[in-house]
Amino acid sequence: MGSDGAVKVGLIGFGTIGTGVVKLLQRNAQVIAQRLGFPLRLVRIADVDTARDRRVDLSGIRFDADAWGLIRDPEVEIVIELVGGYDVAKRFVLESIGAGKHVVTANKALLALHGAEVFAAASQRGVDVAFEASVGGGIPILRSIREGLAANRIERLYGILNGTTNYMLSEMEETGEPFEVVLKRAQELGYAEADPSVDVDGVDAAHKLALLTAMAFGAEITFKEIPTEGIRGLEPVDFETAREFGYRVKLLGIAKSHRVEGGEEERLEVRVHPTMIPATSLLASVDGAMNAVAVHGDAVGPTFYYGAGAGEMPTASAVVADLMEIAREIRHGRAGRVAPLSTMPDHLERKPLLARGQLVGRVFLRFTAVDEPGVLSHITGALAENGIGIESLVQKGRGHSRESVPILVLTHRAPEAAVVDAIESIDRLPDVTAPTLLVRIEEDL
Amino acid sequence: MGSDGAVKVGLIGFGTIGTGVVKLLQRNAQVIAQRLGFPLRLVRIADVDTARDRRVDLSGIRFDADAWGLIRDPEVEIVIELVGGYDVAKRFVLESIGAGKHVVTANKALLALHGAEVFAAASQRGVDVAFEASVGGGIPILRSIREGLAANRIERLYGILNGTTNYMLSEMEETGEPFEVVLKRAQELGYAEADPSVDVDGVDAAHKLALLTAMAFGAEITFKEIPTEGIRGLEPVDFETAREFGYRVKLLGIAKSHRVEGGEEERLEVRVHPTMIPATSLLASVDGAMNAVAVHGDAVGPTFYYGAGAGEMPTASAVVADLMEIAREIRHGRAGRVAPLSTMPDHLERKPLLARGQLVGRVFLRFTAVDEPGVLSHITGALAENGIGIESLVQKGRGHSRESVPILVLTHRAPEAAVVDAIESIDRLPDVTAPTLLVRIEEDL
Repeated sequence: MGSDGAVKVGLIGFGTIGTGVVKLLQRNAQVIAQRLGFPLRLVRIADVDTARDRRVDLSGIRFDADAWGLIRDPEVEIVIELVGGYDVAKRFVLESIGAGKHVVTANKALLALHGAEVFAAASQRGVDVAFEASVGGGIPILRSIREGLAANRIERLYGILNGTTNYMLSEMEETGEPFEVVLKRAQELGYAEADPSVDVDGVDAAHKLALLTAMAFGAEITFKEIPTEGIRGLEPVDFETAREFGYRVKLLGIAKSHRVEGGEEERLEVRVHPTMIPATSLLASVDGAMNAVAVHGDAVGPTFYYGAGAGEMPTASAVVADLMEIAREIRHGRAGRVAPLSTMPDHLERKPLLARGQLVGRVFLRFTAVDEPGVLSHITGALAENGIGIESLVQKGRGHSRESVPILVLTHRAPEAAVVDAIESIDRLPDVTAPTLLVRIEEDL
Repeated sequence: MGSDGAVKVGLIGFGTIGTGVVKLLQRNAQVIAQRLGFPLRLVRIADVDTARDRRVDLSGIRFDADAWGLIRDPEVEIVIELVGGYDVAKRFVLESIGAGKHVVTANKALLALHGAEVFAAASQRGVDVAFEASVGGGIPILRSIREGLAANRIERLYGILNGTTNYMLSEMEETGEPFEVVLKRAQELGYAEADPSVDVDGVDAAHKLALLTAMAFGAEITFKEIPTEGIRGLEPVDFETAREFGYRVKLLGIAKSHRVEGGEEERLEVRVHPTMIPATSLLASVDGAMNAVAVHGDAVGPTFYYGAGAGEMPTASAVVADLMEIAREIRHGRAGRVAPLSTMPDHLERKPLLARGQLVGRVFLRFTAVDEPGVLSHITGALAENGIGIESLVQKGRGHSRESVPILVLTHRAPEAAVVDAIESIDRLPDVTAPTLLVRIEEDL
């Protein structure tokens, strides 16, 4: 503690978000102190790159490459881990906990895989691990679920959890351009990485959904258990047809609790995939790189949270909020006020996940077939054989004979297992020239 | 403390919300205990009406009319005040604090007028006063501002804070029916009171805005200082014209911070009135009795929170969340973790409010005038004389001569003082037959 009662903080990882944290702690030092009753003081930074000029004032801050020294530094009370990734970050976090330091991290990948180990270590050592910045950037969504909705059984949640793909989907819809063109633009704008797969294949969204699911349902779950599809398969015609049907296409993380009637057994339905949602829903109006989460509680009903899901200052906003929360705990002489995943660790439990085949719902199907008489009856016949009712059918771009055209179908509610069977037999038809695309529909957002 | 470590709670006021709290504590007792690590136990209820059957299980709960006895009961650790109003409720709250009890209340009116006194008493006695349910019903908006956005300077916020008026405005827009018809329906549905003035005149919204303003800007303010206009003056033609111009009409609570360039002086702009907002904004899509708040922070940028603003179970959701927060504090042996209004009490300060005349913005004006040649030139002339530019002008329902018709004008940005001067001189014109309606426009939600 400084003579002014300051809580002292060390930062490992001085990239974009780390720079935002330094800026925010300096710029808003006064309001932060007025809210806490004492200052937060950044005393030490560690990063392998000590040469680059981050254009921030580092006076009074020790800056070197010695992360291990920072962790062992007796002056540092809270360690901010902004290195990212699994390996080194995990060692930094566990070593910090072992040294009795509280930890603030934005590392969703680490927590979505090794969360149980990290939280157990923290609980045993009596320190806090806070991670608001790991889901939804600056949106206080974890706090809202863990504390604001703490009296509720959460029934279901839907999240636009990845800004890169939401930007790309918004662009594909607006411009009619294909995936590759929009990806290139996203990369030029810095929204997408050179290797975009963590974003466009839904992995980042699955990381975040694992944390939300644990917190909302008291479930032990890692992101690897979550069925995940990305956005690579979508084409301009899908957006155009969705719009005609009154829907928009979003990459959603979805988690729902299913209770067996009359019983206590709870099953979870958890998945990440492109989803058609009503154009009039709040989630449908979330454009560009923004994030949002809709959470339905049994008492509160529908709630909705929106904000920037990434970026230097929005993410720093969440990191510093966590610092402030932990700093209060330090001054009150006690950590562990709130269980990190909302449910007390000994009540977290594995809950059976609903298998894909057990889902029932409406779906959008894009068949690609040669534009010949008879094709349509083969396709609709296969759907009928599997008990799948057609609500709407649109055939696009009829032109030259023997050319492949998209056939777009909106089904009535059907078991996903039946839909998959129908697709398998349809994709074997000689006139069907490309694998069929399946996009699930969610109405009840 | 019970042998199971339960925190014991007393409830004063067993109406709709109180009944919801009892139901929720019983229904979700298991998840609440799994999140806290110990149970919450309602041990005592007081209400003047002990005869009515609330259709809830009261076994193990002492229920009588003795509120004072409940407050003095040594078993009760937290008192829930759901009586409402100023006088008795204030005495219950202060007496509970004096008896060393923590307090949870949904009483926005009390806190918007006597908050300073209540919070000071609690701070002195070392107990917590929690009031999430007082603003935005079940939406965890106070927590989000106080903790989730704690690292930000809040720049501005906009709230749909009253479900009754939002329901009425949605209905007026959708059906084209006038105020009185829609009010009657709202009363039949139980959305509006027999005396609707607290809702329709904006008083309830001003109560809530006072609390949000205190919390967001660290400002000492009571609701009486907030310029407030209700929705009585609106007519169907206003909604119709707003729609044509790309806007919707909402009763908003608005609070903005203005910093004088180069100086530290902060002025606040705080007001409640019907507002035209872009039809594409998230706030515009909030229909029916729902509430929502958009909050812009300097680091996080725009954020948005949505949910049920009233009702038995949504409000109970917020009350029980507060109980859980305080119960944690009790078990950790210490209250006062977070300053009730976000800023530590000794840093709360009166901040100068921007006077009405200092506002600058676009406005919608509805003039009512005899449909005669020359009228339009008198009106536009008066606007021009006051330096007010016209962006659009629409004349509705031209028909029989000598009949009064509405003339609808959307202005360019103009000082409100000039607009008021123009209206004054226009309303004195012989052909102008009714007072002019002014609706402010907000674009930057």
